Amino acid sequence: MRFATIHTETGTQAVRVEGDQLIGLRSADVGELLAKSDLQAGAYDESGSSTAITDARFATLISRPPKIICVGLNYKSHILERAQELPKFPTLFAKYTNALIGAYDEIVLPDNAERPDWEVELGVVIGKPARHVDDAGARAAIGGLCTLNDITMRDWQRRTLQWLQGKTFENTTPVGPYLVTPDEVDFGLNLEVRCEIDGEVMQLDRTDELVFGPIEIVKYISELTTLMPGDIIATGTTGGVGDARTPPIYLKPGTRVRTVVEGLGECLNVCVAEVRS
Amino acid sequence: MRFATIHTETGTQAVRVEGDQLIGLRSADVGELLAKSDLQAGAYDESGSSTAITDARFATLISRPPKIICVGLNYKSHILERAQELPKFPTLFAKYTNALIGAYDEIVLPDNAERPDWEVELGVVIGKPARHVDDAGARAAIGGLCTLNDITMRDWQRRTLQWLQGKTFENTTPVGPYLVTPDEVDFGLNLEVRCEIDGEVMQLDRTDELVFGPIEIVKYISELTTLMPGDIIATGTTGGVGDARTPPIYLKPGTRVRTVVEGLGECLNVCVAEVRS
Repeated sequence: MRFATIHTETGTQAVRVEGDQLIGLRSADVGELLAKSDLQAGAYDESGSSTAITDARFATLISRPPKIICVGLNYKSHILERAQELPKFPTLFAKYTNALIGAYDEIVLPDNAERPDWEVELGVVIGKPARHVDDAGARAAIGGLCTLNDITMRDWQRRTLQWLQGKTFENTTPVGPYLVTPDEVDFGLNLEVRCEIDGEVMQLDRTDELVFGPIEIVKYISELTTLMPGDIIATGTTGGVGDARTPPIYLKPGTRVRTVVEGLGECLNVCVAEVRS
Repeated sequence: MRFATIHTETGTQAVRVEGDQLIGLRSADVGELLAKSDLQAGAYDESGSSTAITDARFATLISRPPKIICVGLNYKSHILERAQELPKFPTLFAKYTNALIGAYDEIVLPDNAERPDWEVELGVVIGKPARHVDDAGARAAIGGLCTLNDITMRDWQRRTLQWLQGKTFENTTPVGPYLVTPDEVDFGLNLEVRCEIDGEVMQLDRTDELVFGPIEIVKYISELTTLMPGDIIATGTTGGVGDARTPPIYLKPGTRVRTVVEGLGECLNVCVAEVRS
């Protein structure tokens, strides 16, 4: 199955994708849908509305995830371009909710950052609580997968040892357009990930190159805290980021960014300059 | 003014402190109280209930803060004990909501972590949205201050370059018991911070030793994202943590931890071993 969150006249609504139609559900977003005790029932608890995909305005999948957990240094090629050894443990950092935007929204380039960069990633969304889980428990906890672009201000990321401040600028992280249930894509274990900048392919890899795949990551995080429905895990990006190029390339107002994970749909985002209110 | 969140038979409730009485308010917790457009009105919007302080069971101040932002390496003495230079920029990392506990709750020591350690901190709680603010705007945005203990699993903190995983174990971070409005304590600019382990003073410093004080931190974070009512900022800890001692000292089941920031009240927490369900 495939879900999305769309804007309505009064807010947002979760929808189920059926061909070229989006069937309205009685949940305000995919996060609320996942938080229901029975996803199968929620998936068919229809509101009666229906929207053609071409008419829909997509919102970010989950407006208030309990946690956004990002994995760094997780593709072999991205680690090697930064000349680091393969890690024994996943590198984890966070992002705050107000960084999130929809799959077709504008990426706001802050006027106080000089090196905005792209990072296509496979997103893993939790569907059931998970604590100290094994492989089977981790599989059962994964509610779906999505495309995600972990836009990063490299100058702020490197100001200190901790990356958070470069990773959570407001209105910078596209997520969506779809949440795809894991059965449809074999838990994301071997999907192509791709990022194109103004039509040029900059990142291209497959998720079987992840050092820690979706199931391993869910198991690991569940050792320190309870994963909850609606939590988003960004599994890390691959080689080809702008900052590691010679010469480096950064996002500018007008840059068109396309990120896509095979089978999950694409984010298409135009960069715009921040306007202070 | 001084507020708290207490447990009730049906959930939690925000209260205003009046002498030895807690006056019930029509907000489920201090977070909901701060989110109201007019804190002064909310502070006197009473439910009619009243509880003696000695009878109250304190909950964590804010059950679901939009953000928990932690500052690292921010006291001169703590930086020097780790042999690092004074930083140009605040080091920021995150913590997730389910790490939070009340001021008198048990600290759960995970069975998979070997080096749990203490970190007394001044907590700054946001009362009004803040984005690109100056000094006056930062002052206006601070809703109150509190005591906080950023319990850290040093072994997990050091597994990778990013500290998050050692900082956000479930049910480990006491916050409270009180939110004190900034006018009562001069915005926390010069308060004693203290941590005692089984009655022995381990950390003792003053917040005027912070490299980046509360107002500077609020200004800095507001440059990357909008601070929102209920956001909690942990301003960093001082020298005297267990891990930096010779020999090192770590928390064990039964250890009694007392953290106190002058004028804000104390957290008194007993450590217990994790019990897996």
